Amino acid sequence: MSVLVQNREVLEWISEEYHGMNGSHVETLQAAPSPLEFSRICHISRPVLIKGYTIPKLRQWSDSYLSGRMNESLISVAVTPDGYADAIASGPDGKKYFVEPHVSQMTMASLLRNLNATGDAGPEAYYLQSQNGNLFSSAYFDQEVEDTQSELHPLRDDVPAEIPWCSEALGRHPDAVNLWIGNGQSVTSIHSDPYENIYHVVRGRKTFLLLPPTEGWCLEERLYPHAIYSRPDASSPLVAVPSPSDTPPIRWSSITHPERPGSLPPQAHPICISVSAGETLYLPAGWWHHVRQSDDITIALNWWYDIEPRGMAWIWLNLLRGIGNVPPANDVDEDVAQDDHRHRTAHPIP
Amino acid sequence: MSVLVQNREVLEWISEEYHGMNGSHVETLQAAPSPLEFSRICHISRPVLIKGYTIPKLRQWSDSYLSGRMNESLISVAVTPDGYADAIASGPDGKKYFVEPHVSQMTMASLLRNLNATGDAGPEAYYLQSQNGNLFSSAYFDQEVEDTQSELHPLRDDVPAEIPWCSEALGRHPDAVNLWIGNGQSVTSIHSDPYENIYHVVRGRKTFLLLPPTEGWCLEERLYPHAIYSRPDASSPLVAVPSPSDTPPIRWSSITHPERPGSLPPQAHPICISVSAGETLYLPAGWWHHVRQSDDITIALNWWYDIEPRGMAWIWLNLLRGIGNVPPANDVDEDVAQDDHRHRTAHPIP
Repeated sequence: MSVLVQNREVLEWISEEYHGMNGSHVETLQAAPSPLEFSRICHISRPVLIKGYTIPKLRQWSDSYLSGRMNESLISVAVTPDGYADAIASGPDGKKYFVEPHVSQMTMASLLRNLNATGDAGPEAYYLQSQNGNLFSSAYFDQEVEDTQSELHPLRDDVPAEIPWCSEALGRHPDAVNLWIGNGQSVTSIHSDPYENIYHVVRGRKTFLLLPPTEGWCLEERLYPHAIYSRPDASSPLVAVPSPSDTPPIRWSSITHPERPGSLPPQAHPICISVSAGETLYLPAGWWHHVRQSDDITIALNWWYDIEPRGMAWIWLNLLRGIGNVPPANDVDEDVAQDDHRHRTAHPIP
Repeated sequence: MSVLVQNREVLEWISEEYHGMNGSHVETLQAAPSPLEFSRICHISRPVLIKGYTIPKLRQWSDSYLSGRMNESLISVAVTPDGYADAIASGPDGKKYFVEPHVSQMTMASLLRNLNATGDAGPEAYYLQSQNGNLFSSAYFDQEVEDTQSELHPLRDDVPAEIPWCSEALGRHPDAVNLWIGNGQSVTSIHSDPYENIYHVVRGRKTFLLLPPTEGWCLEERLYPHAIYSRPDASSPLVAVPSPSDTPPIRWSSITHPERPGSLPPQAHPICISVSAGETLYLPAGWWHHVRQSDDITIALNWWYDIEPRGMAWIWLNLLRGIGNVPPANDVDEDVAQDDHRHRTAHPIP
């Protein structure tokens, strides 16, 4: 019996037991949890939809308010031909690549105009999704000083740097706080992050398709060569340009449309959660998520908190990803794997 | 590669990673934790020694006070030839058995007299360890009525039915509250329970040897035939009497003296914690423990709380026990395994 088959059996057993114990239940709270309640929730590590947590200053976030606050400051916006940033797409040679978006600098007014004009302005999709702590980064919390490097600095007055009931429950500050602005064109391909995530929708609606960490093996990860969208010349359409051949391949799910019926194996139990304006999703560390947005402008904030390093959580997430087999995509032999490019590397089983 | 070797590799990887992340650190608190602090501690699921949690009424628990309160009531006491109740011992045929103690009914005064007279009274060891919720059982919490069935009912006034910071953290009542009275003769063989455990020492001192759930494979569990100590006639010494052959075998560690150097493999990282009178140990669910006591009378209380059924904890504990190979002891072919006889059955990987 090969190593691969044996490990697959262990993974299938774990996911079946997990689903048997937990089902597909998602709890909904009508008010923000207390720190103790949220500590218990993190222990269980299942998604929770929180309806009663509002952030008053965000009510004023109209297009004109945001454009006025940001004024002529330039912000980094992901531009893609199809709305899929950080996703699998075909390169010029017909092979599949993990393609990062083209990044364009523009004003907030210009971004919002582009998002409102979808269809008129051409096929390209714009998405503010820099997700590098674009509002508050760990430097802010480490240094307890105003790090004015943030492109979105003028919006900080409206956004709490941390979620009080989450910080108190976990006993730590966030690692990064991000603003996301897009429309129905933008889709986030399915992936998981090793962070506890508080996701708050300000305008519009986000639809999450979720899988527990135990069902990651259903997503058929592969190793993809890396590419970046760019324009051969300033007026050209975007094309995926392969990165230099010594760029490490990216480990990513080969299931590009998990929301389509039949795309996942029967052992997967996807959970669909719609998060509307004013609602908050607790997305536990290691949960796989695919995210779509309503057609109108959708604005969201997220607070990433480091996972608890003590105990078993980190080991289990590594086990669930580490004992799976990750073959190369395109039938190309790729020896060197790189984990999700933005995140810490999982330690594979030797 | 056989299934056994493959699973052993997974277990070795898990235990090495777990030790790498956590070391052998045991936190000590100088005061009882708040419910939120204890919720975080349970999430981490590592032992914590709590020095500042006192239960005032227990200060009066002298021999004469206990004998007076219990008066002529009879209590069930475990009697063994060597102090090992629920442990591996040789039967009359020279084979190894899992042997339950003889249970003798006696007054508290008689028990305490026997414990004080060790050496004078003969080689047999007495240990009040009925561990069936002998102070408060789940029936007490479920029914919210006084279930006067408890043999130790007269002592209930002195013992809190629950630990407030633990019940509030976990959001539930205990499943069982037990009194333990023994002396240096009595040893608890190494095993694990699927319960969160709060262990409070009232008199004397207990020494725990602990292994995390990830190192259970180091304990070389085997399937043992079952036996019970009894006397061929009233004045005879105790002998292990094998149970009927259709009694399911018991899964138990074959390492009877893990405290002796060299008895555990080098991949095991035992933690030794001494808990003195007035101190409390949080022993997380699934942690393996071997317990010795000081020579003088040692009195302890424990509160067992059900493990959180949601999330991953239960699955992981089952995985860690379920993918190991458990051969029969005595080279006898035993097909049917029974889990720790007092506890819920783990679901083996099919």
